[in-house]
Amino acid sequence: MFSSQTYIDRRKKLKARFTSGILLFMGNEDSPINYTDNCYPFRQDSSFLYFFGIDQPGLTGIIDVDKDDEIIFGDELSIDDVVWIGLQPRLIDQATAVGISEVKPKASLSGFLSSSRKIHFLPPYRHLNQIKISEWLNIPTNKIKEEASRELIDAVISLRSVKSSEEISQMEEAVNLSRKLHLMAMSMAKKGITELKILSVLTEIVVGLGSRFSYNPIITKNGQTLHNVDYINKLNDGDLLLVDTGAESLSHYAGDITRTFAVGGVFDDRQKEIYGIVLKMEVESISMCKPGISYADVHNQAMITMANGLIELGLMKGDPVEVVNAGAHALFCPHGLGHMIGLDVHDMEDLGEDIVGYDDEVSRSDQFGTKSLRFGRKLGENFTLTVEPGIYFIPELTALWKAEGKFEQFINYNQLAAYQNFGGIRIEDNIVITADGARILGKSIPKNLKDIQS
Amino acid sequence: MFSSQTYIDRRKKLKARFTSGILLFMGNEDSPINYTDNCYPFRQDSSFLYFFGIDQPGLTGIIDVDKDDEIIFGDELSIDDVVWIGLQPRLIDQATAVGISEVKPKASLSGFLSSSRKIHFLPPYRHLNQIKISEWLNIPTNKIKEEASRELIDAVISLRSVKSSEEISQMEEAVNLSRKLHLMAMSMAKKGITELKILSVLTEIVVGLGSRFSYNPIITKNGQTLHNVDYINKLNDGDLLLVDTGAESLSHYAGDITRTFAVGGVFDDRQKEIYGIVLKMEVESISMCKPGISYADVHNQAMITMANGLIELGLMKGDPVEVVNAGAHALFCPHGLGHMIGLDVHDMEDLGEDIVGYDDEVSRSDQFGTKSLRFGRKLGENFTLTVEPGIYFIPELTALWKAEGKFEQFINYNQLAAYQNFGGIRIEDNIVITADGARILGKSIPKNLKDIQS
Repeated sequence: MFSSQTYIDRRKKLKARFTSGILLFMGNEDSPINYTDNCYPFRQDSSFLYFFGIDQPGLTGIIDVDKDDEIIFGDELSIDDVVWIGLQPRLIDQATAVGISEVKPKASLSGFLSSSRKIHFLPPYRHLNQIKISEWLNIPTNKIKEEASRELIDAVISLRSVKSSEEISQMEEAVNLSRKLHLMAMSMAKKGITELKILSVLTEIVVGLGSRFSYNPIITKNGQTLHNVDYINKLNDGDLLLVDTGAESLSHYAGDITRTFAVGGVFDDRQKEIYGIVLKMEVESISMCKPGISYADVHNQAMITMANGLIELGLMKGDPVEVVNAGAHALFCPHGLGHMIGLDVHDMEDLGEDIVGYDDEVSRSDQFGTKSLRFGRKLGENFTLTVEPGIYFIPELTALWKAEGKFEQFINYNQLAAYQNFGGIRIEDNIVITADGARILGKSIPKNLKDIQS
Repeated sequence: MFSSQTYIDRRKKLKARFTSGILLFMGNEDSPINYTDNCYPFRQDSSFLYFFGIDQPGLTGIIDVDKDDEIIFGDELSIDDVVWIGLQPRLIDQATAVGISEVKPKASLSGFLSSSRKIHFLPPYRHLNQIKISEWLNIPTNKIKEEASRELIDAVISLRSVKSSEEISQMEEAVNLSRKLHLMAMSMAKKGITELKILSVLTEIVVGLGSRFSYNPIITKNGQTLHNVDYINKLNDGDLLLVDTGAESLSHYAGDITRTFAVGGVFDDRQKEIYGIVLKMEVESISMCKPGISYADVHNQAMITMANGLIELGLMKGDPVEVVNAGAHALFCPHGLGHMIGLDVHDMEDLGEDIVGYDDEVSRSDQFGTKSLRFGRKLGENFTLTVEPGIYFIPELTALWKAEGKFEQFINYNQLAAYQNFGGIRIEDNIVITADGARILGKSIPKNLKDIQS
């Protein structure tokens, strides 16, 4: 939580972009697991956190542009609430702490919104918020997305994309918490231990820090499955363990870090070779990043570097630029180089991946692999991003492409047979774009082979 | 997961209660945290699990009574899915394992439901399922609850209320997993340790067991707050620590156990006295339980036992039966004695607390305290329940009642001043109703003073 002035300034900047209307920010409610009163741990909506800062369910924030009013709609606790959940800070005091002096009861919100003025709202990803919007504004649930305010979406993205120094400190904290998880995972990756055991210990750490995972951790020897959230394997010497996990800072900024290391601490030659290419992709990409360059270009260059490396190993052939233009590289890296990160691990993805990541200058590719790049546009100072190249050997995809005879001019399918049990390697850091380059956030997390081999 | 015959038999029994129509069971989807693709850990809907058994998102189960058909609507994985989440068992094979031979694509469900036949559905507590029902059946979101099928609700409650022997084994497993959590918490409750540290270690245990908490754990020295899910205190000698936590069995049956013990292992005299009353309430209640007795009567007797004990201590006065009839006891125990437990920790609460817990014979009280009894009706053989009496000293409630002069004929407010920092004590076990009594589920978890004092 920041000072009241921070929230006042953010709302002021936002307001300045509008000449009239009501800006509506829906906080989140508790989310039911298997009945209404048994809920998942609460997570506040990130845009609500950004402009209104209060981290509890049941609130809606209003900026009335015409009247220059700011209101929180929500209810103070009843004595019944106190019996069940205990005394809590009063809502009016919490509102004051974020620079808002007006709190009104929930029940009065629907009437407030029935005015004939334009109501700008963001596209709700929580289904309860969809139902609320539908009922308040009389919009069918399947029309809500198109009725969301593009003007408000653009304004929020424009503000949240550029991180302040206090936000960057939060990002550093998030990475430093995430680092603790990775150092523990590395120290545990020995023969005989299970992925589940590592998960359980990382969970203990993250809970004990008063934090939470920014997303479900990936802890797997099957790194070729990109979002593998099974934890069913026992580790053996020779396995590669891919760990993709991050923690939230106390103000809910996300860390998102990946490391891949050899169980028992010794990489074999093939593992070293592939690891070396991925690391080169990562380091080169970070060194390319600076204001004005498009992230699509950085992605493209990383893929060329990969193709080049795989050609040297005899797994691909031809010209690396042609390989990437054709999309043949996507067999080995079917995902994008990275994405914005901040209050959300895929920052602002709820507002529209294409709106956050693309613009008039850079449009999204529809090519398999490159289409999965979530963020392509030009970098700006104080943007924060992930850089996360990887190389994967995905048996099902390889078999499919081989059977289709796809990209035979670029891919040495016969050489690939030996790699079918290789798995995958990904290396990921979080960076901030500086005035003339980029800086890795947080304390260093080992990634050079000499530092992660025993 | 049980045998295919179990699921076939359950659906057969259900079908036998209907002469026509379609029975619709909505599985759960992944539930978004802060954008659509960042989700909480998946939890399947319990009634879907009970009748269709498949533990993955994106499914709907149909029982067509007229045609005697059973269908799962859901999609097989695409190659893109395999790249991202890996090869998974085919849906058709999973359906076969629960005795269903027909799988149809999701997209065809809406058309299937557009027939003019009666569609019976349960009231959805997940908001996405509310939206689906609203769109499929053209019911406004705020009318869905009243359009849910009371006939189907009653049939499901009637079947799920009586646990089979294989379900009772799952309940035993759930309690035994929960027991591991409590034994660890007891061993950790020493001066200087934080509630958060205990939470983190219990989380490690539950994750390491491949299980999950049945509900957010309560680990607090402020047990007087009934649903206290803060973990902010450091423990001191003399504190009482209340731990209310349970784990799910691998088939998702819930444990729900509470123990209260003295930090450092030594109860002082006042703590012993109150503890003794709570334990007496619990043990007596369990010994009263048998088929045919109403749980409202068991609750009532427990409250009389409490009033009696508090009168002996000089905290209350008058006749215990009159105390309870008037509702004065609720200052010390504002909640109910317990609830059904099974696939949900408050079993079937999504179907309607009053429908599960009350009937023509026993109706719900509207008196403060007693109104919070979730289950009041007559017990039947193989019902599983929690028994969880407690005594609490809630400063805010005491101050309010005292200021109002409430129940001055029953409550010695002056004697209560000394108890304002006492906190609360609750003791909870899970039981199954047998042919002529009740049995505590799972291995014994220490609760006698001699076993929990060091």
